[in-house]
Amino acid sequence: MNYTFSDAFQNLKPSAIREIFKSLTDPSIISFAAGNPSPESFPTEELAKLSADIFANASTTALQYSITEGYPAFREAIAKRQREKFGIGGENDAVMVVSGGNQGIDLCCRVLCNPGDAVLCENPSFIGALNAFRACGAKTVGVPMDEDGMIPAELEKAIAATPTAKMIYLIPTFQNPRGSTTSLGRRKELYEIAKKHSLIILEDNPYGELRFAGEEIPTLKSMDTEGLVVYCSSFSKILSAGMRVGFIVAPNAIIQKMAVGKQCEDVHTNIFFQLLCYKYMTECDLDGHIEKIRAIYRRKCNLMLECLDREMPKAITYTRPEGGLFIWCTLPEGYDSADFAKFAVAKKVAVVPGSAFNCDTEAPSNSFRLNYSTPTDEQIVSGIKTLGEIAREYLKNE
Amino acid sequence: MNYTFSDAFQNLKPSAIREIFKSLTDPSIISFAAGNPSPESFPTEELAKLSADIFANASTTALQYSITEGYPAFREAIAKRQREKFGIGGENDAVMVVSGGNQGIDLCCRVLCNPGDAVLCENPSFIGALNAFRACGAKTVGVPMDEDGMIPAELEKAIAATPTAKMIYLIPTFQNPRGSTTSLGRRKELYEIAKKHSLIILEDNPYGELRFAGEEIPTLKSMDTEGLVVYCSSFSKILSAGMRVGFIVAPNAIIQKMAVGKQCEDVHTNIFFQLLCYKYMTECDLDGHIEKIRAIYRRKCNLMLECLDREMPKAITYTRPEGGLFIWCTLPEGYDSADFAKFAVAKKVAVVPGSAFNCDTEAPSNSFRLNYSTPTDEQIVSGIKTLGEIAREYLKNE
Repeated sequence: MNYTFSDAFQNLKPSAIREIFKSLTDPSIISFAAGNPSPESFPTEELAKLSADIFANASTTALQYSITEGYPAFREAIAKRQREKFGIGGENDAVMVVSGGNQGIDLCCRVLCNPGDAVLCENPSFIGALNAFRACGAKTVGVPMDEDGMIPAELEKAIAATPTAKMIYLIPTFQNPRGSTTSLGRRKELYEIAKKHSLIILEDNPYGELRFAGEEIPTLKSMDTEGLVVYCSSFSKILSAGMRVGFIVAPNAIIQKMAVGKQCEDVHTNIFFQLLCYKYMTECDLDGHIEKIRAIYRRKCNLMLECLDREMPKAITYTRPEGGLFIWCTLPEGYDSADFAKFAVAKKVAVVPGSAFNCDTEAPSNSFRLNYSTPTDEQIVSGIKTLGEIAREYLKNE
Repeated sequence: MNYTFSDAFQNLKPSAIREIFKSLTDPSIISFAAGNPSPESFPTEELAKLSADIFANASTTALQYSITEGYPAFREAIAKRQREKFGIGGENDAVMVVSGGNQGIDLCCRVLCNPGDAVLCENPSFIGALNAFRACGAKTVGVPMDEDGMIPAELEKAIAATPTAKMIYLIPTFQNPRGSTTSLGRRKELYEIAKKHSLIILEDNPYGELRFAGEEIPTLKSMDTEGLVVYCSSFSKILSAGMRVGFIVAPNAIIQKMAVGKQCEDVHTNIFFQLLCYKYMTECDLDGHIEKIRAIYRRKCNLMLECLDREMPKAITYTRPEGGLFIWCTLPEGYDSADFAKFAVAKKVAVVPGSAFNCDTEAPSNSFRLNYSTPTDEQIVSGIKTLGEIAREYLKNE
């Protein structure tokens, strides 16, 4: 039988990164391609202990169907922490637990966008979000960035040129893939533009707690007086990615629609791990644990930057992130990083070419993304050395 | 700010059943409204032991990001069991793990249906599926049933009247909400009609392993020579519903698209519980455990039927299921079960009015659904006694 797929899925490709992830079964390859948290960052012992406790004392709750919006005490604990620590969540907002941050992104688009509507995105941006928008039949319209994030004048231009624009997707803190962070002043400008045009901002903040240098900058959600920010975050980078537990803070009217969508997708998030996260938040030292993760990533990021400083030809530039998981490297104008990535993988080093993150999937890129959280320190030293050799060779030959 | 939602979500209501579930916090209410497995059916001790083992020996795999399609050894174990035990899965088929059966239904519709396309459904049918179709902007077209399931002549009529029909959604075994099972002959007829019109069949079989009487009947997927059946099942009713682990067996071309959709929704299913299910399948006695669950539901169903036989006025009829979780009761013609359900809940007994399961949400129903897996034996006896009193009163007064 010949299958005819829906318009949205007909041409949708699997995420290049997930595909790279699948192909990385060759243990001789050093991968800077993933976006995985460091295995060192999992509080395995505490989770094992809490888990045994749940089986002993709350097994029926933990194994039975539960409420779509999330385990009530867990939602409250999230709401309290977000409010007290980050000033997030007003009286018209609600919290919903989702099965990883990506589900929040997907649901936000599903409830707001009709096929053909546009989402204005930082260009480049997180491929999991771009694909989620495309899967809804939405158009991803890239807005140019500078070192400080999305450029306000470019956003105004994009809005004027895109009457179908429904929302603005931003990762203001430790952006994926660039690793850079948008300043407070710029955030305020972007918020005012969204407000002026009555556009929803989807603020994706999976890395916000991973700051290891510089000053904390308030989220867009914390300045949301108009109820136009849907805030999406996750426990993936601070407890465990494999458990798929994230959360949304958003205006209650939007959360209600997203809950209907979540019912249709997976009814509710794995309740055992909701209980586990809740217990970790209330019985362990989550903030202390996050400090430990920050120290790991501070060390790893600094190590990679030192290696890059030492090994890379001067013609290649890169960001110096203050947190998160990624460094963004740029080849001189005119080079194609997809080509460079092919050379690198032949020499057993995997990087993600920047084109994977482009809103326009056909556009080339002279940048590539490096991840420092997943590889070991030894792999960082040896992989960047190899990458430097390749780069010198590559720039010479082209 | 005023929010404008997408066309598909604008008028989508939360599942009446999930809403009833939320309101059942009053412990004095006896609920026959849920579709929850019996807490007795969870193999808690074994899961606790295997879980400790995973934390001790495979914690990095269990807490880290994983592959969208599912943990490879788990997929293989599922494929082997389905093939050897049920004759399910040909050489062009693949298995994908999903976050509960509902995600399989949702993804199947997302990859195949454009907004405005139609899904032909048994009427009445599972509300979680109907809402998943609606959330894709698809139309749910109800096809009349008799005691043997969807009526082939009515299906032909519906296909002729619905040029936008894209797939046929069936729960042939222990249907939700009717509890009835479609015969082999009828299954073959329905399959041939789908084949003739090149329509995909989405076969939903969450209850198939819960047979406690009568003879096993082959699934539609096991007779699928043309690659037109997407088969959807789950571990919710045989291990734990709260963990959200289900699976799809479908033509590989469709699975590939569904995997792209799953990437956008939740990246992958909770990997810890995938490992847990895999270990249970390979280190424990799953079939023996299922036998125990069948014995529990045989006893509970028989108890509820005995109570109904004793307490209900003769004018009320009901199905006598050979498995699954539900009994379908029908008031005399002209009565409205939504009205009856209101009377019942006022007397502290909750049932689900049949209208909740109708493809046409405005159509009334004189039937209601009873669940026997969730309540205790004492609650079944006392709840059905109350329901009998209400029914006699209700039929007299109307």
